[in-house]
Amino acid sequence: MQEFGFIGLGVMGSAMAKNLVKAGFKVTVWNRSPEKSAELAAVGARVAANPAEVTATCGITFAMLADPAAAEAVCFGPDGALAGIGDGRGYVDMSTVDGETSAKIGAAILQKGGKFLEAPVSGSKKPAEDGTLVILAAGDRSLYDAAMPGLEKMGKKILFLGAVGNGARMKLVVNMVMGGMMTIFCEGLALAEKGGLEKSDLLEVLDAGALANPMFKLKGGLISQGNYTVAFPLKHMQKDLRLAVALGDTVGQPLVAAAVANEAFKKAKALGCSDEDFSAVYKVIS
Amino acid sequence: MQEFGFIGLGVMGSAMAKNLVKAGFKVTVWNRSPEKSAELAAVGARVAANPAEVTATCGITFAMLADPAAAEAVCFGPDGALAGIGDGRGYVDMSTVDGETSAKIGAAILQKGGKFLEAPVSGSKKPAEDGTLVILAAGDRSLYDAAMPGLEKMGKKILFLGAVGNGARMKLVVNMVMGGMMTIFCEGLALAEKGGLEKSDLLEVLDAGALANPMFKLKGGLISQGNYTVAFPLKHMQKDLRLAVALGDTVGQPLVAAAVANEAFKKAKALGCSDEDFSAVYKVIS
Amino acid sequence: MQEFGFIGLGVMGSAMAKNLVKAGFKVTVWNRSPEKSAELAAVGARVAANPAEVTATCGITFAMLADPAAAEAVCFGPDGALAGIGDGRGYVDMSTVDGETSAKIGAAILQKGGKFLEAPVSGSKKPAEDGTLVILAAGDRSLYDAAMPGLEKMGKKILFLGAVGNGARMKLVVNMVMGGMMTIFCEGLALAEKGGLEKSDLLEVLDAGALANPMFKLKGGLISQGNYTVAFPLKHMQKDLRLAVALGDTVGQPLVAAAVANEAFKKAKALGCSDEDFSAVYKVIS
Amino acid sequence: MQEFGFIGLGVMGSAMAKNLVKAGFKVTVWNRSPEKSAELAAVGARVAANPAEVTATCGITFAMLADPAAAEAVCFGPDGALAGIGDGRGYVDMSTVDGETSAKIGAAILQKGGKFLEAPVSGSKKPAEDGTLVILAAGDRSLYDAAMPGLEKMGKKILFLGAVGNGARMKLVVNMVMGGMMTIFCEGLALAEKGGLEKSDLLEVLDAGALANPMFKLKGGLISQGNYTVAFPLKHMQKDLRLAVALGDTVGQPLVAAAVANEAFKKAKALGCSDEDFSAVYKVIS
Repeated sequence: MQEFGFIGLGVMGSAMAKNLVKAGFKVTVWNRSPEKSAELAAVGARVAANPAEVTATCGITFAMLADPAAAEAVCFGPDGALAGIGDGRGYVDMSTVDGETSAKIGAAILQKGGKFLEAPVSGSKKPAEDGTLVILAAGDRSLYDAAMPGLEKMGKKILFLGAVGNGARMKLVVNMVMGGMMTIFCEGLALAEKGGLEKSDLLEVLDAGALANPMFKLKGGLISQGNYTVAFPLKHMQKDLRLAVALGDTVGQPLVAAAVANEAFKKAKALGCSDEDFSAVYKVIS
Repeated sequence: MQEFGFIGLGVMGSAMAKNLVKAGFKVTVWNRSPEKSAELAAVGARVAANPAEVTATCGITFAMLADPAAAEAVCFGPDGALAGIGDGRGYVDMSTVDGETSAKIGAAILQKGGKFLEAPVSGSKKPAEDGTLVILAAGDRSLYDAAMPGLEKMGKKILFLGAVGNGARMKLVVNMVMGGMMTIFCEGLALAEKGGLEKSDLLEVLDAGALANPMFKLKGGLISQGNYTVAFPLKHMQKDLRLAVALGDTVGQPLVAAAVANEAFKKAKALGCSDEDFSAVYKVIS
Repeated sequence: MQEFGFIGLGVMGSAMAKNLVKAGFKVTVWNRSPEKSAELAAVGARVAANPAEVTATCGITFAMLADPAAAEAVCFGPDGALAGIGDGRGYVDMSTVDGETSAKIGAAILQKGGKFLEAPVSGSKKPAEDGTLVILAAGDRSLYDAAMPGLEKMGKKILFLGAVGNGARMKLVVNMVMGGMMTIFCEGLALAEKGGLEKSDLLEVLDAGALANPMFKLKGGLISQGNYTVAFPLKHMQKDLRLAVALGDTVGQPLVAAAVANEAFKKAKALGCSDEDFSAVYKVIS
Repeated sequence: MQEFGFIGLGVMGSAMAKNLVKAGFKVTVWNRSPEKSAELAAVGARVAANPAEVTATCGITFAMLADPAAAEAVCFGPDGALAGIGDGRGYVDMSTVDGETSAKIGAAILQKGGKFLEAPVSGSKKPAEDGTLVILAAGDRSLYDAAMPGLEKMGKKILFLGAVGNGARMKLVVNMVMGGMMTIFCEGLALAEKGGLEKSDLLEVLDAGALANPMFKLKGGLISQGNYTVAFPLKHMQKDLRLAVALGDTVGQPLVAAAVANEAFKKAKALGCSDEDFSAVYKVIS
């Protein structure tokens, strides 16, 4: 049975690492705060003293950090993941980071003789626990193939997208579509209400036809209750729309619908909804 | 077992009437061209000589005509449905017509002592055959209840939406959301392609997450092949977007995303895509 | 010296008719409320008993009514303008009416043996008094030529635009450009303010360069003071944007910027600014 | 009479420096290619050996370079302007540079004991020759006052806008308004044409009313002839729209009309119009 390293045991990482342990792999973990490591030890994982020890002793190490700053700190810090890498051992960064951070980490890993794969995920806590994430991998193909037995325990849909950067880029496109769908969905809900129809009827009709999707089903009910408890923060959606429109600028693709959605989310930010769920854009549309 | 009338045996109506016959109801039909009636007779329906005979002899008559002109002709023409109506017998118009036509037919039926329900459907040939249409009913509640045993054999989701006009209005809102979704979807596909990603990868990712819906799945594949064989004509989608934006004007609801989608479909019309599938809007976005 | 009839002595019509009198023409007037007629009589006009008397006695009659309803009432009502027309006498309707009303009046005048010109104006009270209106004439070319000595006293710029309907259409295009300019102007003012610049500085800069125009100069100062006293009602601007976008629909011209401006004005209407000046769109943009 | 330095004698700088000489000031110039210096020497200017000699010998030096790279090279290069600065002598950079470049140059000048003013201009060759530029100054107020006798010979409208950065920012806002106006103007021209009106008639009407402005007058004629000879490159307008929308993002100002204009210019870039005049956006609108 393969041995894997796992660095970063937050809400997502903890669930993902447990799935590896449960599947019977030998897993060596590290986390900044040790309580989380203890949780993994309790189910059978080995706990390393620092990231370098993980990458020095495991053929393939997965990392799942909160943001670009954490991903860089864990890689480049003292006794960081980079210090232990070498000899063709692999580093699979599943954190959601921007293209620059990913490229920087990847180049450093290669420079030290390691292999690198970026593999951001789509999906949150529940899919992480259920092993049903969508994994957007890009970088070293041989590492992708070697890591597959582990990836398969974490995700239900795993794609190899080519060169480093394509994983982050794919996530941007998907989030852009999400932001645009949310915008037209909110316009539909608002038009229904002003037009004398019940929101709940519209939701039922949408759910019964070719447009039915989990987001409308989940968010439609919450919006109807005025419940904007954060799942995906509105400010992050606006940032992704901004970056997607900028990507369109770089590659020569006009994006009118995305640009207009971006302005709606900007308006919502200006009105103080930054830290609410992104569905709170309904408040500036209705 | 109840007896129903059914007027209009096109692709949709024929499939719907057959579902009534199969369910064991006695069904009396009429169609402009007699071959279609013969088809229904072969499975057990009775064929009437004209629409008036249907409405005069059946407690409840369903009508499924191609467009407002046909719906009016069948109702108001010589030996039309109106001539046979009276005595509390019901007329359920399932044709997709505008609010004015629906209101005009409904008022005439009431005037003659009949009951009226508008019940446009969402879904096309396959759901009609499978009895899985979405039925958007509005008008006389008692007729709705009385017609339910028949409606249930034609649709899987049947809603009563209130006063006459609400059925047509709901359909407009749904189609507006569909047009907006198609627009941002096409922008996503175009951005993926220009950005060096595979369209097929984007489709897989979308289909694995919270945005997964039958329309993306079906149309994504066809767009990737450049196949715009008409299912829902682009000019009809643009008309519905125009009417939805106009409805927003009437009820005081600004609709920026819908307005922008409308202009994209107008551009596609200007470039000659009127009679292609509405997914051909991809051609003016990419 | 030529003799002219003039029907409709509101703020605009009264000023225009006085310019004809001042220029030395014999002028016969009629107005619904007689006080206004008395004002014109005081400066030398003859007062008729009804519109029919005006059109029966003058070779060319100008009409300047408040809206389509008034224009129709004066033409088709008892002892209306139509009753007196005939024998090649001309009727020049300078009211701002929609294309249908204009076509209906024009056809009736022709039918009775008269000549017809639509001639809506651009400009308000001050240009009417100064004789510096812009006159958008369309219809009978020979009537246009014959009326020119009078038109020249009312406008500084007089264009013949072809068939009846083109005058109204031109006005729509101009107002669409006005609405779009106001929208981007308000965005500029709002961005300047949020960005730490003085609105007054922006106005000075704009007024010194290639974008300098009377509207920015006038409205910029008023917007800075929060003064939205009505000159051109916001609801009329929104109506014109709606009609312009609809015209684009009819003739196959996508209009994204106009559509987006239309939604901004709709938002302003929804927030209660219908009867304020159209520059009040600033309130929903800033 | 005051003595001024002038660095950068391109099309703009040469005309501006000549205006200083003509006004009777003693002027010391430097330019990369010496022929241009000879031209100035011919009218009475003194020619320095390098930028450092200019800033070391003149109390106030104006600089007018082609772009940020040139502005940095002249300041920071060997024997650059920075080397000669000190003792409270002033450096007025009139080049159009981004905020970062301006801040970097300004900080270095201050560090060496000099005073700094950014003063980008609005207007091109003709206003430079006529001394009728619009000058957007920001930075050291005392330097602004001291430089005024010179600035007055170069510009007809000179504003002091506060801290360094505000000059560049103001120029961005103005260009955003310009881009938005051009977009709605092109939509108007396109709608007129499709609607059976003459473009030349629309231009006459616009020029006679409250929207009349030099840009419509100049560009309207050129667009009608299909003449897109570059005055302001389309790619620069798109860049400014992008930066203006990004500024709105930073300061919390949604900008729907500007965002939509940006996408139109992006579309024009994608179709190969980058190096044509920005009015070539007409080609993707019509």
